[in-house]
Amino acid sequence: MLLDENRLFPTDPKVRDLARTLYEGVRDLPIISPHGHTDPRWFAENQPFDDPAQLLVTPDHYIFRMLHSQGIPLDALGVPRADGRAVEQDPRKIWQVFADNYHLFRATPSRIWVDHVLQEVFGVDQPLSAYTATAIYDHIDDCLSKDGFRPRALFEQFNIEAISTTESAIDDLKWHHMIRESGWGGKVVTAYRPDAVIDPEFDGFAENVQKMGEMADEDATTWQGYLAAHRNRRAFFKSYGATSSDHGHPTARTEDFAPDVAANLFDKALRGDCTAAEADAFRGHMLTEMARMSLDDGLVLQIHPGSSRNHSKDIFRLFGRDKGYDIPSRTDYVTALKPLLNAVGGEPNLTIILFTLDESTYARELAPLAGVYPALKLGPPWWFHDSYEGMMRFREMATETAGFYNTVGFNDDTRAFCSIPARHDVARRVDSSFLATLIATGRLNENEAHEVSYDLAYRLAKQAYRL
Amino acid sequence: MLLDENRLFPTDPKVRDLARTLYEGVRDLPIISPHGHTDPRWFAENQPFDDPAQLLVTPDHYIFRMLHSQGIPLDALGVPRADGRAVEQDPRKIWQVFADNYHLFRATPSRIWVDHVLQEVFGVDQPLSAYTATAIYDHIDDCLSKDGFRPRALFEQFNIEAISTTESAIDDLKWHHMIRESGWGGKVVTAYRPDAVIDPEFDGFAENVQKMGEMADEDATTWQGYLAAHRNRRAFFKSYGATSSDHGHPTARTEDFAPDVAANLFDKALRGDCTAAEADAFRGHMLTEMARMSLDDGLVLQIHPGSSRNHSKDIFRLFGRDKGYDIPSRTDYVTALKPLLNAVGGEPNLTIILFTLDESTYARELAPLAGVYPALKLGPPWWFHDSYEGMMRFREMATETAGFYNTVGFNDDTRAFCSIPARHDVARRVDSSFLATLIATGRLNENEAHEVSYDLAYRLAKQAYRL
Amino acid sequence: MLLDENRLFPTDPKVRDLARTLYEGVRDLPIISPHGHTDPRWFAENQPFDDPAQLLVTPDHYIFRMLHSQGIPLDALGVPRADGRAVEQDPRKIWQVFADNYHLFRATPSRIWVDHVLQEVFGVDQPLSAYTATAIYDHIDDCLSKDGFRPRALFEQFNIEAISTTESAIDDLKWHHMIRESGWGGKVVTAYRPDAVIDPEFDGFAENVQKMGEMADEDATTWQGYLAAHRNRRAFFKSYGATSSDHGHPTARTEDFAPDVAANLFDKALRGDCTAAEADAFRGHMLTEMARMSLDDGLVLQIHPGSSRNHSKDIFRLFGRDKGYDIPSRTDYVTALKPLLNAVGGEPNLTIILFTLDESTYARELAPLAGVYPALKLGPPWWFHDSYEGMMRFREMATETAGFYNTVGFNDDTRAFCSIPARHDVARRVDSSFLATLIATGRLNENEAHEVSYDLAYRLAKQAYRL
Repeated sequence: MLLDENRLFPTDPKVRDLARTLYEGVRDLPIISPHGHTDPRWFAENQPFDDPAQLLVTPDHYIFRMLHSQGIPLDALGVPRADGRAVEQDPRKIWQVFADNYHLFRATPSRIWVDHVLQEVFGVDQPLSAYTATAIYDHIDDCLSKDGFRPRALFEQFNIEAISTTESAIDDLKWHHMIRESGWGGKVVTAYRPDAVIDPEFDGFAENVQKMGEMADEDATTWQGYLAAHRNRRAFFKSYGATSSDHGHPTARTEDFAPDVAANLFDKALRGDCTAAEADAFRGHMLTEMARMSLDDGLVLQIHPGSSRNHSKDIFRLFGRDKGYDIPSRTDYVTALKPLLNAVGGEPNLTIILFTLDESTYARELAPLAGVYPALKLGPPWWFHDSYEGMMRFREMATETAGFYNTVGFNDDTRAFCSIPARHDVARRVDSSFLATLIATGRLNENEAHEVSYDLAYRLAKQAYRL
Repeated sequence: MLLDENRLFPTDPKVRDLARTLYEGVRDLPIISPHGHTDPRWFAENQPFDDPAQLLVTPDHYIFRMLHSQGIPLDALGVPRADGRAVEQDPRKIWQVFADNYHLFRATPSRIWVDHVLQEVFGVDQPLSAYTATAIYDHIDDCLSKDGFRPRALFEQFNIEAISTTESAIDDLKWHHMIRESGWGGKVVTAYRPDAVIDPEFDGFAENVQKMGEMADEDATTWQGYLAAHRNRRAFFKSYGATSSDHGHPTARTEDFAPDVAANLFDKALRGDCTAAEADAFRGHMLTEMARMSLDDGLVLQIHPGSSRNHSKDIFRLFGRDKGYDIPSRTDYVTALKPLLNAVGGEPNLTIILFTLDESTYARELAPLAGVYPALKLGPPWWFHDSYEGMMRFREMATETAGFYNTVGFNDDTRAFCSIPARHDVARRVDSSFLATLIATGRLNENEAHEVSYDLAYRLAKQAYRL
Repeated sequence: MLLDENRLFPTDPKVRDLARTLYEGVRDLPIISPHGHTDPRWFAENQPFDDPAQLLVTPDHYIFRMLHSQGIPLDALGVPRADGRAVEQDPRKIWQVFADNYHLFRATPSRIWVDHVLQEVFGVDQPLSAYTATAIYDHIDDCLSKDGFRPRALFEQFNIEAISTTESAIDDLKWHHMIRESGWGGKVVTAYRPDAVIDPEFDGFAENVQKMGEMADEDATTWQGYLAAHRNRRAFFKSYGATSSDHGHPTARTEDFAPDVAANLFDKALRGDCTAAEADAFRGHMLTEMARMSLDDGLVLQIHPGSSRNHSKDIFRLFGRDKGYDIPSRTDYVTALKPLLNAVGGEPNLTIILFTLDESTYARELAPLAGVYPALKLGPPWWFHDSYEGMMRFREMATETAGFYNTVGFNDDTRAFCSIPARHDVARRVDSSFLATLIATGRLNENEAHEVSYDLAYRLAKQAYRL
């Protein structure tokens, strides 16, 4: 067995038993995956996955960044180059590099996720290493050719009740359309991600806005037409199940400008004349506009700020975005969110879900804000913090001020489809451990803990995201 | 029983036993409450408290902010409006809302404090819930009509050796006078809180200064007269037992200006001509002036910086200050305190007690500063951090660099009178757990731990605050 | 016995056993001390140490800062004054003050280090206190007169395989020369510390550069000559075993200017015309130059930023540098390191080791950076964080993202020679505890843990520093 059945539980025997009991109560609950980046095409076409390397190594930035940090070129892992030059194509070679260096992942969440995938999805029972690489490759490769390992079959095996993908505001949602038309019963919804038409610094911003206008049949080059186009696209996304919008800005800055100020910034942005500060201001204002639209259409507003993207210019030039060089940076929320929260934070029917990459804000800013503003909830630990220690710190730092009911359960935020059960399992285990510790230290009684456990594993996500 | 007798102790049985032994040694020590916000009128008049809702719900910002965060209007909790419009008046209805939503407080310190009050003060033994709300209300209401539940009786029952309230520099201290005249033996002292006459941005600053001048029989509109008026008021406060001043500034900024610069800022402040930056500078300078006065009169200087007050303009407009919308913000100490510490930080007979709402400064800034400057001590975890996890983080992050003897024990900082024993009990338990862990991991021997335990629970507060 | 043989191990009996087993596997490994501040003169001359106070109290800023924080003047501890006025000269009196106040160190790392030195180096078995002070003084003093307590004998007894001292770029390395000439087999290498010739704000910068030029036989007053002089001095340091350079800048700022911009800043710096901002920019640029030289000569680049030095002007004036008044400050890495990392961060043969005094950057900035840039590694917890809690926080916050193999083992960073075994012992115990917890919570298997344990205690430091 690769996995310890008591993994992530407290070490004290009595507290461990409490944790295990709580965990057993939620282990088999359906998965609600309200925020993530799986590819809807998988579920639309339901084709077999390519090979073990393409499934588990090459597209997983947690994996390739760690290998790269020890000097392995991204080319050797098959990561495609922006300039189209050749990279390693042989999945067996890529897999072997991964296996040779699997010790690098000791004590990282990737290790638990991969071991979980190997054991629970593919039935592997020997540790991945240089010596077992080929045998495990062959075994997974063989699995992938079977119907039971096609995307829809795995979706069902994983017991996913609902999953949200994330699409650009100017996506045509054709894969979601194809899923719907297929008659398949799996609940795969989209989420409205308008960065490409909200961020003046996004590649092709003006063209993107133009395209959005065409798709929405609005003149999106005027401020009012632009807002109308957003409303139209949001409605279109809702027709494919969207219950949320998602916004990945460099900072948490929000603004609530008068319409003429906003319109003026928008004009500048379209002309490509925004300074960096004006671009930031415009993004900030658009969060408030999005929230106002949410008051009408009910989409949950998700804010994912604080990543300093593409830190290495060389890697960005050679390989493009999302290559592991996105680094969290210090993020202010108290001042930054004030315009948004003063505009709409008191609305009890609005849900704004905040994420952070700056853990120092959990106890200092986020829990105090979520613990008073009716519209505000805290998303689960995100990205680099989606791990045992990260989740535990979140609970320890946020709960005393925000309680459990200003949080929204777990989401996996992943495009590594096979890791979804692993990630939810980790979250359920960590929460069970946290709750067991509360019981054992007299801070919660056992009956309550079972209720909270169910809420954290299932109900809160379903409710917050209206799924 | 609502309370687990082993609550907040470590889970390992041997370490738990160590903690319990330490705790038993300090559990019944008298309470030193050197900083708080109880109303001296209670002890002066010694009238019965109104009703359970007025006692435990409506005035407690920890309670109403959490309820409000889930969409319950402040009106429904009886929180008075600034515009005088009607709010809920029926204490039974307010209590019912509280009880209906008591699950929101799971794993928060409020839950432990309220359960402690219910069980230890009022003898309630069933959990508060929608179903028990009325019975518990009736029971508490009945208690409140008895002499044993009047303020002075509770003061004695709580075993309070000394308590400090906090009054504005322009308060006439009539309730303190009335307490003294009453002949009652309870030690209730005041503390000098001059924000209203130090902060140029405080409502009615110039009028407040004018009033201070009148009370002190000085022309407080001149810089020298203003300083003299402070000295006079401090002496007046000392005559009612004050041993400390207290300063709640937005930042930890200090300055040590030449007299003409300070006088010029003061003139501007009086005229209402200060920019925000000048107001901040003036507040900063006044901390150094206060410290200089402390060198003469021995008052302990407390600095409570870093709260961004009244974050919601709507709530401030409708309900006024202190309505749960005060949010901690990132606070710098290293640069900010330099002028003050360079002026007086080397004085061994001066005590400056620092608090923070920014836990990231414990290990990085506060412990290193308190671990070297003779005048500097660290206050206990404050406000949002006055909790099991918050206290444990403080000990874990501050002790290795500042030791125990640059800290000042616990203070409850509360206006929730009945929660005072609960809060001190939590502190004593957490410290017992921390010390027990030190013993069990070979970092302290048991004899020493008992001495430290006594110091943390009783002696350090008494000594630091000269009570 | 002063020391608990199970100190710093987890409290749960099974986890404790795991930790102890891991610890026993590394306890007796040779010490690699790749970064520190011992005086090479000790090993060159091999003279007996002066007395217990000079050995353990007066030069140790951890010790005298804590005593000072409680009002004991530095003079009373024998700390020499910059103005040459008399300070306490009697080592017995100094020792007595230390012993009288030994309780101040409870739960600090100094306590563990001193107890370890007393017991393991000098065979003391009674606790230091006012009452035992004289007896312990006499005992240590007696030891110091014996050959077995001379520097080289202790070096060997401590099982030091290699130690690095740190010398200024303009040091003549005469003590290192004398060590080499002596034929003694102890491996004592130097490290290249060029702050005095890189920091325009360093006392005597221009003279220092002049001197460097003379030593290197280059005209160091020109930009090209200055760089050539660095290369020359680095080669000279390498000839005395240096494998690293070390840089203690106020911030982590780096720059990568065009040569003419850098040359222009250098000219200003030499003329003493740099603004503070320009001085910071020049220091930042020189880190990148140093890294480029490292590509050629293989020296490991160590960056130690974030200390706000000499916080008290009085103490600096009276006693000079390094008197405990260096306070950590908030440090940005994401933006600050971008120029350096964009220039050389992708080089797999370069090693840049980052340290921090700002723990909030571990999970947010440092682990994500080290977890992707091939050249970057994380140094161990430094200075105020070189302690049980500090080390545990480092592992908990950095490992999940950076793994173990982007860290470089432990270094003691000390001039307190006798404490070196104590410090390495603490690190080995803490890492054993961390690893045992990983095993017990199913995050690492036991075989792997033994391998990692060896790596953390020995191999990683040796490999990263090329010792």
